[in-house]
Amino acid sequence: MGDIAIRPAAADDLAAIVAMLADDPLGAQRESPDDLAPYEKAFARLADDPSQHLVVAVRGDRVVGTLQLTVIPGLSRRGSTRSIIEGVRIHSDERGSGLGTHLIEWAVAESRRQDCQLVQLTSDTTRIDAHRFYERLGFEASHLGFKLSLG
Amino acid sequence: MGDIAIRPAAADDLAAIVAMLADDPLGAQRESPDDLAPYEKAFARLADDPSQHLVVAVRGDRVVGTLQLTVIPGLSRRGSTRSIIEGVRIHSDERGSGLGTHLIEWAVAESRRQDCQLVQLTSDTTRIDAHRFYERLGFEASHLGFKLSLG
Repeated sequence: MGDIAIRPAAADDLAAIVAMLADDPLGAQRESPDDLAPYEKAFARLADDPSQHLVVAVRGDRVVGTLQLTVIPGLSRRGSTRSIIEGVRIHSDERGSGLGTHLIEWAVAESRRQDCQLVQLTSDTTRIDAHRFYERLGFEASHLGFKLSLG
Repeated sequence: MGDIAIRPAAADDLAAIVAMLADDPLGAQRESPDDLAPYEKAFARLADDPSQHLVVAVRGDRVVGTLQLTVIPGLSRRGSTRSIIEGVRIHSDERGSGLGTHLIEWAVAESRRQDCQLVQLTSDTTRIDAHRFYERLGFEASHLGFKLSLG
């Protein structure tokens, strides 16, 4: 991953991030890349929250990956802090390049740096390739992930 | 649930909360109710974080339930905010009383109040009764939950 840098996302990256969120079998139905207003509002909120780490992977000046890391203190497991990874996307030009591994390894290293004892994420049951990917990286599919839409 | 109140947890509730975390087939191996120091440190961090809502259910002056609700802004799903429920425990004397339903319904209502579009949680694959419980409350087991321990 010689010329890839991972850095905090900036407001200027938003269109590129949203394009990646939408370029996905599930995201295609959920996102509105032609209307950035709701994303701008959410970005401002993320930028204000010290527990939130929205990052981009860039090759040169091109955004080619993103993920959101959230640090969550808690009482269980002897007061363990955990991190949650959400919104992992790799640009279609970069899939299979090892960038996904590089991004997740960054998130795990950052979680250690922030004294997290646990990293967790959920993946839609239909994303079979993603499940194999996370298992290769040492994650265990020990849980079921439940969601309730309030839409 | 006539005489049950749900309120933010206070430092004085900590021993009762930790006792409930430990009184559980999985928690028994993970918690140290005889040493509250790590929990006190985590409690202080939770109390300082406006995205964190650690609550207790009390009957009279007795703590009989707890959960932690975390509010997480994000870009995906058109800038949706989601909430995550963790650390749900019901005192053994109160199991089967409907208190679990009451607590989760509180968390869903609070999530709506905070403009969340999604509520999510993970449950260990071995907690079959919990899975049925969440499905009865309208949650969908649409995801796999992956964890990586950094311990």
